[in-house]
Amino acid sequence: MKSCGLIVEYNPYHNGHHYHFQQAKEITGADCVIAVMSGNFLQRGEPALTDKFSRARIAVEQGIDLVVELPYFYAVQHSELFAKGAIQILNSLQADAVCFGSEHGQIDEFKQLYQTIRHRQHDYQETVKVALQEGLSYPKANEIAFYQVSDQQVSLDFTKPNNMLGYQYVKNIYDLNSSIKPVTITRVQNNYHDIEINDSIASATSIRQALLYNENSIDNAVPFFTNQVIAQYKNEHERWHHWQAYFPLLKYRVLTMTTAELQAIHGIKEGIENRIVETAKLASTFQHWMELLKTKRYTWTSLQRIFTHILTNSQKSEIESLLSDHHPKGFRILAMSKQGQEYLRYKKKSIDIPWFTSNKPPYPYHLMDERIDHAYYSILPVNSQQHLAKQPYSRPIIKDA
Amino acid sequence: MKSCGLIVEYNPYHNGHHYHFQQAKEITGADCVIAVMSGNFLQRGEPALTDKFSRARIAVEQGIDLVVELPYFYAVQHSELFAKGAIQILNSLQADAVCFGSEHGQIDEFKQLYQTIRHRQHDYQETVKVALQEGLSYPKANEIAFYQVSDQQVSLDFTKPNNMLGYQYVKNIYDLNSSIKPVTITRVQNNYHDIEINDSIASATSIRQALLYNENSIDNAVPFFTNQVIAQYKNEHERWHHWQAYFPLLKYRVLTMTTAELQAIHGIKEGIENRIVETAKLASTFQHWMELLKTKRYTWTSLQRIFTHILTNSQKSEIESLLSDHHPKGFRILAMSKQGQEYLRYKKKSIDIPWFTSNKPPYPYHLMDERIDHAYYSILPVNSQQHLAKQPYSRPIIKDA
Repeated sequence: MKSCGLIVEYNPYHNGHHYHFQQAKEITGADCVIAVMSGNFLQRGEPALTDKFSRARIAVEQGIDLVVELPYFYAVQHSELFAKGAIQILNSLQADAVCFGSEHGQIDEFKQLYQTIRHRQHDYQETVKVALQEGLSYPKANEIAFYQVSDQQVSLDFTKPNNMLGYQYVKNIYDLNSSIKPVTITRVQNNYHDIEINDSIASATSIRQALLYNENSIDNAVPFFTNQVIAQYKNEHERWHHWQAYFPLLKYRVLTMTTAELQAIHGIKEGIENRIVETAKLASTFQHWMELLKTKRYTWTSLQRIFTHILTNSQKSEIESLLSDHHPKGFRILAMSKQGQEYLRYKKKSIDIPWFTSNKPPYPYHLMDERIDHAYYSILPVNSQQHLAKQPYSRPIIKDA
Repeated sequence: MKSCGLIVEYNPYHNGHHYHFQQAKEITGADCVIAVMSGNFLQRGEPALTDKFSRARIAVEQGIDLVVELPYFYAVQHSELFAKGAIQILNSLQADAVCFGSEHGQIDEFKQLYQTIRHRQHDYQETVKVALQEGLSYPKANEIAFYQVSDQQVSLDFTKPNNMLGYQYVKNIYDLNSSIKPVTITRVQNNYHDIEINDSIASATSIRQALLYNENSIDNAVPFFTNQVIAQYKNEHERWHHWQAYFPLLKYRVLTMTTAELQAIHGIKEGIENRIVETAKLASTFQHWMELLKTKRYTWTSLQRIFTHILTNSQKSEIESLLSDHHPKGFRILAMSKQGQEYLRYKKKSIDIPWFTSNKPPYPYHLMDERIDHAYYSILPVNSQQHLAKQPYSRPIIKDA
């Protein structure tokens, strides 16, 4: 049985994702497609529009065979750690290939770049260090180092987020000596940050914008089932999840924390805690708060990740200890098709990381996940909170036939 | 210049409070009436209906000469500590008398009881200890000890909350060797816990009930100015403060705290933190949460005080360190009349605790107060939060002539 891994967020699952899934299956000849998906909070430090269970359900309905959750402490991180967690899980799951979308679309250059940088590791790291000292953001410092070390021979454009992520996937596959074969396809969708739906392949950003501000219909840009599930979510729970809805909670939280407590939160450094408190007093919306906070050194996404960690009370001591493990202590299956179940049975003996089908102990991250789920659901009506908080303790979603 | 101290919460200032003020002035012949008032959170562990500034303004308009804030760590405490903080401030302010309302109404019996208990201190404390071990609440244990030590000769009914508070005032006056003369008047108002307005002298509980649930007019039960100020507060800030409004914040907070963090909160003991977390998951309203939590050992008010400390992030280490001081390191004037200003000038040299007129440093509790104010205002629209959070840094309210 051949398998292919995808690394996804599905926020929400749209036509571009479906195209990616179909292409991956075709190119790699996989019988089983495994999606490693972020949970309720995403890599860019945002709450997902709807919860991980609704998103996993859409994925299996659309044909994905296994939806595995990327644990929070890998998911809400810069691209290096995000990629590391995802590749480790796919490696343990014996995936034969990983197929990622990239703006570049040619796998060879990703591989060459890996070789180049590996041979000039020291120069690379020195360049990053100097750039950070000059007050640049972490992604910008990496971008500069890439160009410098590759003698600007590289045609990969690292200002494109999916090229950067793709590089990290390839790097982690080789660093692990994994037998996973990296494959890339060109992203045909609009630019990641586009905010208007112009096409049947639209960016997730534009789809969320259309939903949250009721601007356009998203019918042309997402599968029917996506539309149905996310509409139902809002009907049942009164809202979708987005930062502004968390603004009162987050502001309350920041303004009642001691300085020492803020300093203990993962991602807080260099006195940013003082700026967070001072700007909290002035901000009238979440967007306004972000604008007041933004500096050259902190990207928008790194600030959002800090806010996520404050909201979920994720502390340095906890996250750093989890990251210091060589690989995840376990992972969780959120949803599976019959084929996915079959795959797990078939590979059972060779999967070297324990896997779990609910958030019950001994799942190693059950306490963390419970806290994060509560934070995520906290903006919903109390009945919804109680109802949704039970899902993690039920059996995973299984698609019949 | 003769002065009389009152120990109050004014939530809100009603006809019974006004009668108490007038009687106190008449009986003690005071030229200056000083009210030591709880701030934004009250002795029974509740947010005040409107903030301390609005309540202080009503008080000076009604004739009080000085409104002094009882610091949070004395205010949100059982009667012993509440009384201790208030009496120490009034003693430092050189009050000639303290006049309190009690159900009993005769001062001599309070004094006699103090002497009796002082001579049988050891028996008293042993009885309290045994009763606590048997699982009774702190007030109940004290009540039993009172009766036992006084050989049931006492006609003071300690199930009445104002008799208990009154006793603590008298006790603290004598323990301090203060020259304050304790005076009591009979409370003519309805029972403290009455929830209906039957009279021009109604309980504060019934008045809040009428306001929050829009049941009756409160016009007959409060001075015109009270009505005006609290109506204006709601007009400007959309709501009054009551526990249910904080329920989403408190639930979010409890469900994202670690066990160690909950255990560090002032008032948490004996594993109540586990019950708080488990009941949080089931509760549909604040009232429901309280009902799920309530046991014989914990009174309703002691649980509400714990919730207040969770909401304001008030930790054992902080509160215990503040309480270990022999007397408050400072106190704050919230409002004064010309007569009150005159009194402070006149007594300046003999007031032995530094006093402050804003929440700016070096006011010793400025960081704590800022945190508490933010928690208190957090349920209001963001514009109101920003506007109201500036008040503590302005000059106190001064009533002209």
